[in-house]
Amino acid sequence: MLNPSEYIKQHIRTVPNWPQEGVMFRDITPLLQNPKVFRVLIDMFVHRYMDEKIDVVAGLDARGFIIGSVLAYELNLGFVPIRKKGKLPFHTVSEQYELEYGSATVELHADACKAGDRVVLIDDLIATGGTMMAGKKLLERLGATVVEGAVIVDLPELGGSKIIKDSGLPLFTVCNFEGH
Amino acid sequence: MLNPSEYIKQHIRTVPNWPQEGVMFRDITPLLQNPKVFRVLIDMFVHRYMDEKIDVVAGLDARGFIIGSVLAYELNLGFVPIRKKGKLPFHTVSEQYELEYGSATVELHADACKAGDRVVLIDDLIATGGTMMAGKKLLERLGATVVEGAVIVDLPELGGSKIIKDSGLPLFTVCNFEGH
Repeated sequence: MLNPSEYIKQHIRTVPNWPQEGVMFRDITPLLQNPKVFRVLIDMFVHRYMDEKIDVVAGLDARGFIIGSVLAYELNLGFVPIRKKGKLPFHTVSEQYELEYGSATVELHADACKAGDRVVLIDDLIATGGTMMAGKKLLERLGATVVEGAVIVDLPELGGSKIIKDSGLPLFTVCNFEGH
Repeated sequence: MLNPSEYIKQHIRTVPNWPQEGVMFRDITPLLQNPKVFRVLIDMFVHRYMDEKIDVVAGLDARGFIIGSVLAYELNLGFVPIRKKGKLPFHTVSEQYELEYGSATVELHADACKAGDRVVLIDDLIATGGTMMAGKKLLERLGATVVEGAVIVDLPELGGSKIIKDSGLPLFTVCNFEGH
């Protein structure tokens, strides 16, 4: 086997011109549907956080749920979903963030974690970093400490991973791709 | 501890009049964020399917990803997401189904599984059963056999679980609630 990052990267499919012309979409579904690659991927996250005294795993809607929930289970922790606006039924805190055109909002249940909790924040991919920065703010508004953000794919040319690190949030990325 | 189904049911929160007046929404987030209850829940699914020679775990967008991905990992299987329209980038098969007002469409990558695969289909809740029936049809169009549908919550008064069982698909439900 290659080193795990290369092995995982080889199972990410590039779909050109999706969702729009000029975008090279990095599709993680071939990775998820291959039992061995999926296991190697999850285990990278488990090994990284098993000794970090994490209290809560938070996952960003919706692909962040796929990695985040397994990580939570393996570490004997609870899993907290951060969702797009209008999906969570109870009292929420919410954060709006800017997109290339317009804006989006993510929400977190107000009782999802408590002050002092150490949280890992999971998504599948970092592009502009807007969703992860908004997720970090939500968790911090509940008094939690976001120990690290973690994703499978970084697209460094889009600048999100730099913004996240510059904000003081450590970021773990399994692999990265050139281009958009 | 109570029996596992009762224990899990006690950690589901009812939010009245959400998303609209008259609806009693059954919210699984308190269950997910409690490490012990989350573990007991996942283990019910793992124990049920560990000897069933399953090839693929499919999860319905988005709460089905939370249970489905852990089940796949624990059984050393791949995980396949069935998504709302427009979320999957590669070649897809799609199924439209009726809602109370209007319709919705779910999609599955055409290479997500292969003829003869034995699949478990996971979601969080059965209401009218439309999403699960559409997911079953998608998997069957790829030649897979859906061995069972599995959810945390059944709302039997909405009739979905009866429709699913009448279609010939066995259905596993952890607990059920009266009313809508």
